[in-house]
Amino acid sequence: MPAPDKFLSFIDEHADKFIKRLGEAVAIPSISGDAAHRQDVFKMGNWLQGQLNTVGVQTKLVDLGKHVMDGQELQLPPAILGRIGDDSKKKTVLIYGHYDVQPAELSDGWDTEPFKLVVDEASGRLIGRGATDDKGPILGWLNVLEAHKTLGLELPVNLRFCFEGMEESGSEGLDDLIKSEVAKGKDGWFDGVDCVCISDNYWLNNRTPCITYGLRGIAYFKVTVSGPTRDLHSGIFGRTVYEPMTALVALMSKLVAPDGTILVPGVEDLVPNATDEEIAIYNKLDYSVQDVEQAAGAPIAISSDKATVIMGRMRMPSLSLHGIEGAFSGAGGKTVIPASVSGKFSIRLVPPQTPEDIATLVEKYLKDEFAKLNTKATLKIENLHGGKPWVADHKHWNFEAAKIATRAVYNRDPDLTREGGSIPVTLTFADSLGVNVLLLPMGRGDDGAHSTNEKLDRSNFLKGSKLLGTYLYEVGAIATA
Amino acid sequence: MPAPDKFLSFIDEHADKFIKRLGEAVAIPSISGDAAHRQDVFKMGNWLQGQLNTVGVQTKLVDLGKHVMDGQELQLPPAILGRIGDDSKKKTVLIYGHYDVQPAELSDGWDTEPFKLVVDEASGRLIGRGATDDKGPILGWLNVLEAHKTLGLELPVNLRFCFEGMEESGSEGLDDLIKSEVAKGKDGWFDGVDCVCISDNYWLNNRTPCITYGLRGIAYFKVTVSGPTRDLHSGIFGRTVYEPMTALVALMSKLVAPDGTILVPGVEDLVPNATDEEIAIYNKLDYSVQDVEQAAGAPIAISSDKATVIMGRMRMPSLSLHGIEGAFSGAGGKTVIPASVSGKFSIRLVPPQTPEDIATLVEKYLKDEFAKLNTKATLKIENLHGGKPWVADHKHWNFEAAKIATRAVYNRDPDLTREGGSIPVTLTFADSLGVNVLLLPMGRGDDGAHSTNEKLDRSNFLKGSKLLGTYLYEVGAIATA
Repeated sequence: MPAPDKFLSFIDEHADKFIKRLGEAVAIPSISGDAAHRQDVFKMGNWLQGQLNTVGVQTKLVDLGKHVMDGQELQLPPAILGRIGDDSKKKTVLIYGHYDVQPAELSDGWDTEPFKLVVDEASGRLIGRGATDDKGPILGWLNVLEAHKTLGLELPVNLRFCFEGMEESGSEGLDDLIKSEVAKGKDGWFDGVDCVCISDNYWLNNRTPCITYGLRGIAYFKVTVSGPTRDLHSGIFGRTVYEPMTALVALMSKLVAPDGTILVPGVEDLVPNATDEEIAIYNKLDYSVQDVEQAAGAPIAISSDKATVIMGRMRMPSLSLHGIEGAFSGAGGKTVIPASVSGKFSIRLVPPQTPEDIATLVEKYLKDEFAKLNTKATLKIENLHGGKPWVADHKHWNFEAAKIATRAVYNRDPDLTREGGSIPVTLTFADSLGVNVLLLPMGRGDDGAHSTNEKLDRSNFLKGSKLLGTYLYEVGAIATA
Repeated sequence: MPAPDKFLSFIDEHADKFIKRLGEAVAIPSISGDAAHRQDVFKMGNWLQGQLNTVGVQTKLVDLGKHVMDGQELQLPPAILGRIGDDSKKKTVLIYGHYDVQPAELSDGWDTEPFKLVVDEASGRLIGRGATDDKGPILGWLNVLEAHKTLGLELPVNLRFCFEGMEESGSEGLDDLIKSEVAKGKDGWFDGVDCVCISDNYWLNNRTPCITYGLRGIAYFKVTVSGPTRDLHSGIFGRTVYEPMTALVALMSKLVAPDGTILVPGVEDLVPNATDEEIAIYNKLDYSVQDVEQAAGAPIAISSDKATVIMGRMRMPSLSLHGIEGAFSGAGGKTVIPASVSGKFSIRLVPPQTPEDIATLVEKYLKDEFAKLNTKATLKIENLHGGKPWVADHKHWNFEAAKIATRAVYNRDPDLTREGGSIPVTLTFADSLGVNVLLLPMGRGDDGAHSTNEKLDRSNFLKGSKLLGTYLYEVGAIATA
């Protein structure tokens, strides 16, 4: 069931108004990771609640309690639960998004003020912090709802909403809220949910819309090697004591090969080899080795084989060495033997890996390798955080609806992608609701979420709004099919 | 010729005043390695010049030009040349010291503010950055001069001074100055110098004074591996690109074994094996494996054999990994793939090694090993600074004077030691003046130079001042013997 023409036209006709509303949202610096901006996150939550109410959504702000950040106890921004429609003959779609943003300052290298939306007519870009992550997509839903309310169109599905203000800072409190709402069943805000749609990621490139059915998980490790009780002078102590840095660097060198192969025994064995059919899927994606190298800014792809590079991101685990805490990290030449050094690395996980079984393998390996070093320094292994990987059934009707909607709006097939990063809430929805979860991105691969000059293309904002609406019609069509 | 009793008494009677003056010196954060503190280094130089003038020393500040640090062009702190006495019947002693210090911040783990001298009555410690390295010893000379001026005592020798403000940052400009002053002969500030005395090192332990006749040299390397043009997100890019950290850590792991053996081919081969006679000398020193472990604060000595551990410091080269610049070094877990990372390490050298032949071996080895990694990241090797090792004749009259002075003040024979650290200027003085150079330390082995909670014991400051003065009398006695 295609979306009605008057809905689609409404989006184009009200483009300026929608962009103005995005400007209002961007102007509120709702930075969840900065205590000084906590009130702005609340302000943004109130603004969003008001907008939802205006377009007919019943809402509730849920207090998630307090937490400690930068040594201060702070009130957590509320989750916004919402509902519109209660027709048992219709499917019910749960929408997730977040109204907080990453920090941004002009001095970080922005060309324009980050919290003032700039409409660049020449490039067609809407530039500002949060434009694509995740205020643009949230406002896409508002655009859909406003069109229906103004035009007097009936929504093709029942909608439930869950918007949070802490996504950029660990989604504190959200998992518990979701589980508790699910547990309430018919009396909760997630009653009757048939599927979930999250619009909080990006196309693989700048050309082809995509639908995402997988995310990597993560297991983050901190490995501390300690020796002397204080930093020592390398002239006085060099070659008299076992140096922690020597042992830590030796350990870290045994984790991953230059080509990305993970050397921790068992970690790669958990992952099934790609079938020829699977490799064909990756080869078909509108993405090239050159795209990766362009995004990285240098000719450093791990392979000249397209499928190898793309699978490296989407269906293989990866291990990155992030750095060392406690060692000399400044400029110049300091002749110190650091007393205690902590190597930081993380492994991105794919099914069936879990943070728990990876931690077991990593800890055993590090202990074994450390013993071989025969050092008198001591070893401590910590697991800083973890999240499971997620892969959905991309042949589910939820995905089919999104594919049809994409074809209708963009006149082409979407890429079916898995993402290298992690959005832990995805898995919480999938596991606790037991329904299919879909990631339907609005922005492009070069939007620069978390970076300077974050933008959302005007065409992606408008076509993206049409896509979200059309997707609801296709879900509705399946319900009545 | 023993030092006059009234000189020795004067030191004890004026202890509080001398400690107060040390507090003034410590309060100036003259960190030569930090551009933001450059003006403090100048301030310290001016303060020291004023003090020298007050006790009768004629001085000259020598402009050493400019240099580039952290991308900024900076004026180098001046060298302070000084002279007092011009009696052709007396020997002339050249004194060297440095008025700059290592960086220090409370957050590094100091128990007290590093730039506020704390007099801990219970332990008898004077705690603060520079207390022992090298403001305490410089002030020891001031104490000697003040005593003689106040008491109307004639100095037993002519004195020449050379104090610099860049010792902790490679002594830039100093070698040229020394050579040029030496070249001026009678018209220069080093006219008639018979011997040199440097007080800028430490006892081997906390009990026995020592005199030092050897120093290790140093070759300091910065190895940069670069890949992408900006830091990347490990979720999006992990296993799609060659990561610079992976290659750098692999390279750094190939430099030194946990037991201190240097793995760069050729570096150890340059050093002759120790003879049995030599090993016997090291076994005789008042120093034990337990002393090393006590100073390090942990049971981490590389061997249970005394001579092996002491030779590791005194007559063997050592390689220490200091840290990595450009990687994630903060607390917590950041999922970054750093774009460009620089490993810092240095090799302490012993005769006949030179920084030049070591650099050749290191660069070849790093390039060979990097090639084996088959990464598309790029390698750059820089030689940050270097200094030759030095060994003097410890039977020279300069050393005999220091031995007699030590017996007089401490009532025991000094240990004769070689040091693990580097004071490159020692060699410049020895080579360009062609006279004997002596290292006569003031502080103890646990003073923590370059570390947190740097201290000088009150008794070392006072007895050390007496020692420096008594040494001058013994040199004077040799002149008239």
